[in-house]
This record gives sequence, structure tokens and C-alpha cells, in this order.
Amino acid sequence: MKIGVLGAGQLGRMLALAGYPLAKDFVFYDMSGSPSAGIGETIVDPEGKQLDDFLAKVDRVTYEFEHLPVDVAEKLAQHKPVHPCPRALAVCQNREAEKTLFGRLGIPTPQWQIADSAEGLKAAAEELGCPVVAKSVTEGYDGKGQAVLKSPDDAVQAWDSIGHPRVIVEKFVNFTREVSIIAVRAEDGELAFYPMAENIHHEGILRYSIAPAPQLQPHIQADAEDYIKSLLNELNYVGVLTLELFETPEGLMANEMAPRVHNSGHWTIEGAMTSQFENHIRAVSGHPLGNVAARGVSCMINIIGEHGDIERILELPYAHVHLYNKGERPGRKLGHVNILADSYEELVWRVKNCAQFLPGCPEFESSLTAN
Amino acid sequence: MKIGVLGAGQLGRMLALAGYPLAKDFVFYDMSGSPSAGIGETIVDPEGKQLDDFLAKVDRVTYEFEHLPVDVAEKLAQHKPVHPCPRALAVCQNREAEKTLFGRLGIPTPQWQIADSAEGLKAAAEELGCPVVAKSVTEGYDGKGQAVLKSPDDAVQAWDSIGHPRVIVEKFVNFTREVSIIAVRAEDGELAFYPMAENIHHEGILRYSIAPAPQLQPHIQADAEDYIKSLLNELNYVGVLTLELFETPEGLMANEMAPRVHNSGHWTIEGAMTSQFENHIRAVSGHPLGNVAARGVSCMINIIGEHGDIERILELPYAHVHLYNKGERPGRKLGHVNILADSYEELVWRVKNCAQFLPGCPEFESSLTAN
Repeated sequence: MKIGVLGAGQLGRMLALAGYPLAKDFVFYDMSGSPSAGIGETIVDPEGKQLDDFLAKVDRVTYEFEHLPVDVAEKLAQHKPVHPCPRALAVCQNREAEKTLFGRLGIPTPQWQIADSAEGLKAAAEELGCPVVAKSVTEGYDGKGQAVLKSPDDAVQAWDSIGHPRVIVEKFVNFTREVSIIAVRAEDGELAFYPMAENIHHEGILRYSIAPAPQLQPHIQADAEDYIKSLLNELNYVGVLTLELFETPEGLMANEMAPRVHNSGHWTIEGAMTSQFENHIRAVSGHPLGNVAARGVSCMINIIGEHGDIERILELPYAHVHLYNKGERPGRKLGHVNILADSYEELVWRVKNCAQFLPGCPEFESSLTAN
Repeated sequence: MKIGVLGAGQLGRMLALAGYPLAKDFVFYDMSGSPSAGIGETIVDPEGKQLDDFLAKVDRVTYEFEHLPVDVAEKLAQHKPVHPCPRALAVCQNREAEKTLFGRLGIPTPQWQIADSAEGLKAAAEELGCPVVAKSVTEGYDGKGQAVLKSPDDAVQAWDSIGHPRVIVEKFVNFTREVSIIAVRAEDGELAFYPMAENIHHEGILRYSIAPAPQLQPHIQADAEDYIKSLLNELNYVGVLTLELFETPEGLMANEMAPRVHNSGHWTIEGAMTSQFENHIRAVSGHPLGNVAARGVSCMINIIGEHGDIERILELPYAHVHLYNKGERPGRKLGHVNILADSYEELVWRVKNCAQFLPGCPEFESSLTAN
């Protein structure tokens, strides 16, 4: 079976690495002009003229990024199975649609309003109570197109910096930590939920994911599973879905979802019985799902901007290095390291030991290191 | 770094799958005319005319099978680092040279003699005492070119069936079980030894490998490490080396070695901290070695001839499926399944449960199932 992947970055690369052992082949379709998957066949097509060639080569289609035109996905779906469905893409591309769906399915979110002018933004900030976060409704990615308003007076400046005709304004959530849940749904509706991860961001980029999330109360995992299950079933979704959430003293609040394998699930490569990548390929290909149980405890550390001293990291007996074979550039995701341990206590010092070889890696501050 | 692999079968495929996460690229050189790696670039060159092209494309050279002309490897080594060294190839291609080296290094073997005629074979059989095993000195693979003599009178028939001008005659060893040790040596001489595996063959083909080998006395593992260490150092070897041995009540006896990753080490993909494939790539690339410790207990089951009911196997929560994307053919290695468990007791029923979905898979008879 040949799987077509829209996008050709590191997520596609890792999907392929997980798919070859299941006898899948891969064709990547790249519109960026700078594919980095480095594996399988890649059609580079910045002008969008070779979609028919791509379609003719593949049996099924999936994607590794959600900023793909929905009409392209819909066109493809007329000819070949496209998983996840284009509707999932449409929802994920629009924060208003996403938050509306969350609300309709009973998934708690921060309070939010829509603004389509600087005045509207100011009014929303006043009504919700500052601080608020304003985000463009579409095309946001990794902290771009966002602004924090500490006061309604920041509205004009925030509006200008976002530069988008429609923004969603969200009340700031006083969260304990950021977490995510990754789940997978098979073609026959079978579901599987990975243990949640605790995610540590720095300058808008994910730096660490600890899984299973330490000190997580069982009802929190159960709530997250209920939420993502309702999304998966509502969308008749096939493949891996990620839901990012805030954990607060009052429970979980959904932040956003991603219709794909996710950076906060990279720990699953060695840290779970079946990786998120293999499970996505299984689902997309119509196979039964694999076991999502954790193997020990894990922490994923992102390699951002510079590779650091990879040779030293390769010497660590508990570290698994995953490089994307990309050139160094500030803020760029170049790879990740999965740290394994039998206990969280052991995990903490192993993570710190590894992080010292990664320049610019922020200090490991998590629920494990909090006093 | 681009690694050139001589041979393009499933071992090369799995080397590449382990090497991409270390930012390696792969070029395969195939002389068989039927490459099956299915990944990376493949130069198909049955007439041996494109070796220069291959060399020009790669930074380092390794191989996935040992039946490569030694002069080809030597020629390559004049231009690019070739790991393991051509001398290792030469030794492994000649059972007489191999057994001679074993003897010189103090590695016990079954008693053996050389014969270059039917009469010589008969005399050797008489002197060693039947049963004996006669094998062509060169070009043996997976039980081909071998014959068992139950009596010296079988000599003429055995000689004719082998059809080779020079054979090695080995006294039959009354072994308890077949085992193997896989070790890896880095460019700087660093060594690492995997836990030994117990191997179960059927009709001359490996069917099951259990690792770590159950009920193995520590001094047996220590002996095997001493033996393979002396080979690695003697050959100034870089990469993964496999030594197949018989375990007898009197200790270990070496059977043969393979200068490459080995079927009896496929369990390491999920069953060890670092797979044999990754460690071979690390060594060949000049990196430090990875941790070879086992993760729980494992059994590798080969998929031979027919794929069987893969969908049912994919449902098993303790099974990892590795397919080579090859067509079915009697006796052909099509893939393998790694079964993981926390105890040998658990492992036994899991293996039996999986094997029922593989037609032609012999019953699981091992030290774990012996009364």
C-alpha cells in the first residue's frame, strides 16, 4: 500500500519510518518548496500543478500539517480515501469553528469572544477582564499572530501587531500546567488513548514533554479521554488527533487541537508500546490499532535552533536521538531526544544531564522540579 | 553522512530505518538484480559496472551480506572507509579460515577436518566418529551445501550432494541448544555485548530467537563475550559481529560467525535499549555505541514463506510486526514479529498465541517449553 502524505517535514519522515515495517510505501507532496522528509518519493510542487500525479501514485492520503487548503483535501477525497477527513482540517484551521465545536460538545474552554476591529478587541478585553490573549482566527502557528493584552488600552497595538481582520479573544487561564492528550481512531471506530503528557513551552515553542504526565489524577485522564473521544466520533475521524489542554485547579480546559501526530507525542517512539506514528499509519491503512501503554516514564526534549553536542548525548545510555537532518536556524525544530527512566526521580536528573549538551535549552522546570 | 550498503535486502532496509534518525542517508548497491530494501537510493548492477558511481556517492561503506567478493571490498577500501574490514569478510567466507582463527584465538569448536575428495570425506568421518556434518568450505548459506553423514558409508553420496571441491567435516555436537552473541565495536575500540539469544531452527532456517537466553548461567555469557571480544580485537573490527554457538554441558562451542547484523538480533529493535541496526550505524559512522541492555524479555518469530494472518497479529498488544515488503515464496524470510513480555512465563503463551496465525510456523519448542 502506498500512502500519500501532504507535507514533507519531520512528521512525515517519522510517519514513513514507522510505516515501512508495516509494508507501506510513501509519496510526499510538498508545496513549501523545501521538503525535509528525506525519505520516500517527494513531489515538490509549489504551484500546485501536480496534484493529479500525486493522486495517481497513492492508495490513501493523509497529512502532516493542518495548514493545507481545505478545498485541496476535499478534491483529493473525491478520488482516494483521505484520513483524517477534510472537515477535521477545516475545524482546526479556524479557531472560532474549533472553540464553537468544543463548546457544542461540552468540552470546557477559556471564555472567549470574537472581535473584528480594534474597538471590538478593546470591548472584548473589557468584558472578559484582562489579561486576555488575542489570536487571529486563522493561520496561527507556533505563537505567530498572537498578542497578550494586559489592559484594554493595549487593544490598538495588539490589533495592529496581529494584522488580521478577525480575532478570537480568550480570557487568560490561570493554569497549573499545560498538558495534551493524543488519541487514535481506526476506520472501524476503534479508539485508543495515550497517557497524557505534561508540556513545557519556552518562547512559544515546545521544549519538553513528560509522559505519562506526573501526578495526574485518574479523573483528569478520564476527562481528557471523554473530550477527545467526543471530537473523534463527531468528526468520524480516522488517525491520530491531538488535544492541547490547560490543567487548572478546577479541571481541564481545551486550548486547541491538531489533526495529526504531534510534537508532544514524540516520546511514544521508545516510550510507548506503539508509537503515535505507527498508530496513525495503522489507522489510515485500515489496520487494527496498536497498544498505547507506556513503557516506563519518558521525557522528550526538543532540539531547537542548534544541534549542540550530539556526540555527548549519544553516549548517554538512556537517551534516544532523533534527528531530522535539517540545517540549523534559530527557532527551528532540528530533532528531539527521548529520555527513558523507570521512575520520575531518575528521569529528572537524566533530563537535566542531557539538556546541558543542548545550547539554548531552557532549564527543566516542570511539575517534577516544582517545590 | 551518506552510508553505502553493499546488498539491498531486509537487513539493509532495517539498517536504513535505524540510520535516518541519526541523520544518515543511504545508497544501496545490489548485484542480485532483485533488491528489496525499498528505501533510499538503490544502484542495481548485476554486472558490477557501477561500483565507481556507488563509491562517489557515499562517505562510508558497509554491507548487509557476507557473500561479496573480497576483492571488491578491498578495492572499495582503498577509497572510502569500509566497515567491517575486508579481512572479516574473507574469514567469514571460508569455513576453514574461520575455524582456524577460532582455534588460534582459543575459541572452542567442534572437532573438524578438511576433505578434498569423497575418500577424504570418508576417512574424516571414520576418524572423527559419526555422525559428522560436512559443509562446503565456501559459499554456504542457510543450510545449503551441507550434508549429515550417519556413517562413513554415506561419504560418496554426501560428497556428490555437496558438489564442492573442498569440504570441512565437523564432529556432531550433542548440544543442549543453539545460542548466539551479538557484539559491536566502535572505531575507537569501544565494545558492547548484547545479552545472548537462544535460537530455534527448523529445516535449516531460524524460526525463533529468545533473548535474553533463558536460564543462562552468567559464566556462559562471560565466555561468549570473551570469545567475540577476541575476534573483534583480532580483526580490528568496526560494526556488529555475530557469533553462533552451541551450548553443551561442557560449555560453549563456536559454530560460525557473521560479519553483520543478524536475524538472531532482530529482537533488539524493541527488546533492547539500542537495536543492533542502530549500533551498527553508530559504529560505522564513528559515533559512540548505544546501550545494549534488554528491555524485558523478547522472542523474535520469523515469518517464513507466507505472511499468514497479519491483521490478527496486529491486534496482539504485545507484538511488533516488521515486514520486508517481499513476495511470498517457500522458505523466504518475509518479516518477523517481536513479542515482548515482563517474564518468560508470560512470553511463552504470547509466542504460542502469535505463532498460531503464522502458517507453517513450527511449534515453539525451546528451553522454556522443555519439561
